[in-house]
Amino acid sequence: MQFSRKHLLGLEGFSKEEILYILDTAKSFKEVLSRPIPKVPTLRGKTIVNLFFEASTRTRISFELAEKRLSADSVNFAVSTSSVKKGETLRDTARNIEAMKIDMVVMRHSAAGAPHFLSECVDAHIINAGDGQHEHPTQGLLDLMTLQEKFDDLSRLKVVVIGDIAHSRVARSNIYGLQALGAKVGLCGPSTFIPYQANHWGVEIFYKIEEAIEWADVLNVLRIQLERQQGGMFSTTREYFNLFGITRRRIAAAGKDITILHPGPINRGVEIESELADSDCALILQQVTNGVAIRMAVLYLFSGLPSANDSESET
Amino acid sequence: MQFSRKHLLGLEGFSKEEILYILDTAKSFKEVLSRPIPKVPTLRGKTIVNLFFEASTRTRISFELAEKRLSADSVNFAVSTSSVKKGETLRDTARNIEAMKIDMVVMRHSAAGAPHFLSECVDAHIINAGDGQHEHPTQGLLDLMTLQEKFDDLSRLKVVVIGDIAHSRVARSNIYGLQALGAKVGLCGPSTFIPYQANHWGVEIFYKIEEAIEWADVLNVLRIQLERQQGGMFSTTREYFNLFGITRRRIAAAGKDITILHPGPINRGVEIESELADSDCALILQQVTNGVAIRMAVLYLFSGLPSANDSESET
Amino acid sequence: MQFSRKHLLGLEGFSKEEILYILDTAKSFKEVLSRPIPKVPTLRGKTIVNLFFEASTRTRISFELAEKRLSADSVNFAVSTSSVKKGETLRDTARNIEAMKIDMVVMRHSAAGAPHFLSECVDAHIINAGDGQHEHPTQGLLDLMTLQEKFDDLSRLKVVVIGDIAHSRVARSNIYGLQALGAKVGLCGPSTFIPYQANHWGVEIFYKIEEAIEWADVLNVLRIQLERQQGGMFSTTREYFNLFGITRRRIAAAGKDITILHPGPINRGVEIESELADSDCALILQQVTNGVAIRMAVLYLFSGLPSANDSESET
Repeated sequence: MQFSRKHLLGLEGFSKEEILYILDTAKSFKEVLSRPIPKVPTLRGKTIVNLFFEASTRTRISFELAEKRLSADSVNFAVSTSSVKKGETLRDTARNIEAMKIDMVVMRHSAAGAPHFLSECVDAHIINAGDGQHEHPTQGLLDLMTLQEKFDDLSRLKVVVIGDIAHSRVARSNIYGLQALGAKVGLCGPSTFIPYQANHWGVEIFYKIEEAIEWADVLNVLRIQLERQQGGMFSTTREYFNLFGITRRRIAAAGKDITILHPGPINRGVEIESELADSDCALILQQVTNGVAIRMAVLYLFSGLPSANDSESET
Repeated sequence: MQFSRKHLLGLEGFSKEEILYILDTAKSFKEVLSRPIPKVPTLRGKTIVNLFFEASTRTRISFELAEKRLSADSVNFAVSTSSVKKGETLRDTARNIEAMKIDMVVMRHSAAGAPHFLSECVDAHIINAGDGQHEHPTQGLLDLMTLQEKFDDLSRLKVVVIGDIAHSRVARSNIYGLQALGAKVGLCGPSTFIPYQANHWGVEIFYKIEEAIEWADVLNVLRIQLERQQGGMFSTTREYFNLFGITRRRIAAAGKDITILHPGPINRGVEIESELADSDCALILQQVTNGVAIRMAVLYLFSGLPSANDSESET
Repeated sequence: MQFSRKHLLGLEGFSKEEILYILDTAKSFKEVLSRPIPKVPTLRGKTIVNLFFEASTRTRISFELAEKRLSADSVNFAVSTSSVKKGETLRDTARNIEAMKIDMVVMRHSAAGAPHFLSECVDAHIINAGDGQHEHPTQGLLDLMTLQEKFDDLSRLKVVVIGDIAHSRVARSNIYGLQALGAKVGLCGPSTFIPYQANHWGVEIFYKIEEAIEWADVLNVLRIQLERQQGGMFSTTREYFNLFGITRRRIAAAGKDITILHPGPINRGVEIESELADSDCALILQQVTNGVAIRMAVLYLFSGLPSANDSESET
């Protein structure tokens, strides 16, 4: 297959073939990560700017590790020390960075569409590391990779995403990715957390967690972003846990195996019971490991380098 | 030519030959930047500390990229996390850093003379990345390089620097560098922005922007540092734009080609009309590109390494 | 000797042989630092996370330089931008970082025991870069290395640690390390700064600085952490200097050679007279240089790599 996309702005519109190709590439990078020296020269001499307009630890470190393991040169740009403070427009920031001969920009921004906007101003390849309430495509891909490792074929799978769907970029990237691979998607949460457009998304909607668990093979439990809940849509963490918390008791009541994903960081005792988060059915740390492999694959495939099997696919 | 200076504290006192030699070196590094792998092993194993006591994005990133492309190892030191907070003197900070076996220090500081002071306490090579209202020599050099690319010989050129001259380190480095190469320099701004000593600098002084444009081949438009204008010397950005803003209409009225430089970040609609900043006569992004090449040249030439053609120049 | 420890949590419990082995290794790395290219490929491909939950400059830079000179890949994690803000537990932070395939974690934390806790949650090798009022083992080791360079055999040496012993992790690591090498240790400070358990530590206790100097060969002068003195145990810096400040006059009164150490950053005129800090009897900058060598040795020996002379020691 020839991989011809230039930017990774979101999973919306990606075909099954494209996603499987990314997952295959990530699989071979995961093998690299298990070597004594987990490093390849693939992006040697390429320059990547990590342009983070929102605080982030794990996503930034995951990208940074992926960059180092591909031997790229990377430079961090955090908003707190930036010219943005001096009133510069995003477009000027972008064009200035580009003028320094950057190959790729990994960007996180609180505004949905910021990476898309950037991709129209500059020639560099843009990787979306999370934009507002829009998408977080590498998170979506690492979730798919983790499920593929367990279930192989995702087309028979029922996955419920649980939490504040309306404000979650993780939910949106999951829906696009899962549906592209033929999985069935459900959403579950308090009605204030389910956007009214969800009826048009081809998903099942559950307002009772018991019914969601009954239906699902997999629960993708979103983090309740306590720091963003100030609009009166949320009462207390205790009430949320009582109504929607994922617990061993609730799983047991369904009487079947359930697989649990969580994008982290976990609020133990809010969206998920602490013991359950540490149990074998939760693949949370495997997701983190896969995150580095997915980001290596994405950085490689979107770098503009000719991909390894281009020649084959062209014949 | 043998390049024997140890520190780059400012362009004051640099000869035409020295500046042309730096520009020549930068030219060959600019060629490196256009290669598929824009990297050379020149400073491999050298350690550089980026000692930034003032927030900075573009200058810091530009230096960091230059360092990585020369294969140096670099470490960032930002004031916000530093011992400086614990009351340590600058001299102790410097000597401690030096004791860790640093080869070069790239320093930005709000106090004029801080890099000079540092150069007297330590053995490392000091590169001034902007000190108070004194100098910003790499900015001066990248401006010269950009003009040289367009005009080749600068000795016939008339350059007006426009803005808050009194508080601008960019202005001072421009004046020293341009005059060394034989260009004529003008200054333009409200009278509160022109220092009274300027009469002794061998420059033309303009209080009306129309007269400055009439005289000039090149306008170097300084950023109005809105965050520093609180002393009653400045009324409103609207008034400044009306009186001194560089606009297409004003350029057209002069009836000739004008070249525009700006050190960035741009305040669109304050010191320059937005459309003009994006027009072909503005070399703003070319300045940014040249900035990386200039910094590579400076880091190389001031590193203490024997320069490439020492042997020739000694015969 | 076979070096089989996995973590460096503190110097408590280290044998004389273990400490001398680390110092020997540091000696050979110090030779590396004097080379034109002070870099070895020892940790190439290893990934180290610098996990700093407390602000730090010199310790962080010293570790970062050590990592770069060993060719390791390192990633910085500072608390200000971390998920810790989002309420994540230390254990989850640690396990997530580990899931990204980290080999070593260098950790500074305000809570005593945090590195120990981490070493029980994760498989990575943990290096304590200072934990609360517990230990700062690499500081202890670099102090020992500096004394060994001057005195060779430490078993005849009398070292007084002066300052706020009760709150000092430097003091504790010094006591363990010095006693392991057979040195005699004294403590000196106002009675509010000497912990009541100190009677059981096998140390001499001095409440008068003159008596301490009279007894000692070496003074290890702790920094008075002015930012932490708000509990009424400390009157003024002036009074402290009068009662406990180390001055040329006090040294001269003792009528013998005295060696001075200080972990930095120095409060000139508080715990030590400025001129004395710059005199030949103060080894303060040599400590800083040795710090990088010690950290290279520690990162190498605790990396899990087979050490150079394992084969010999096994026969």
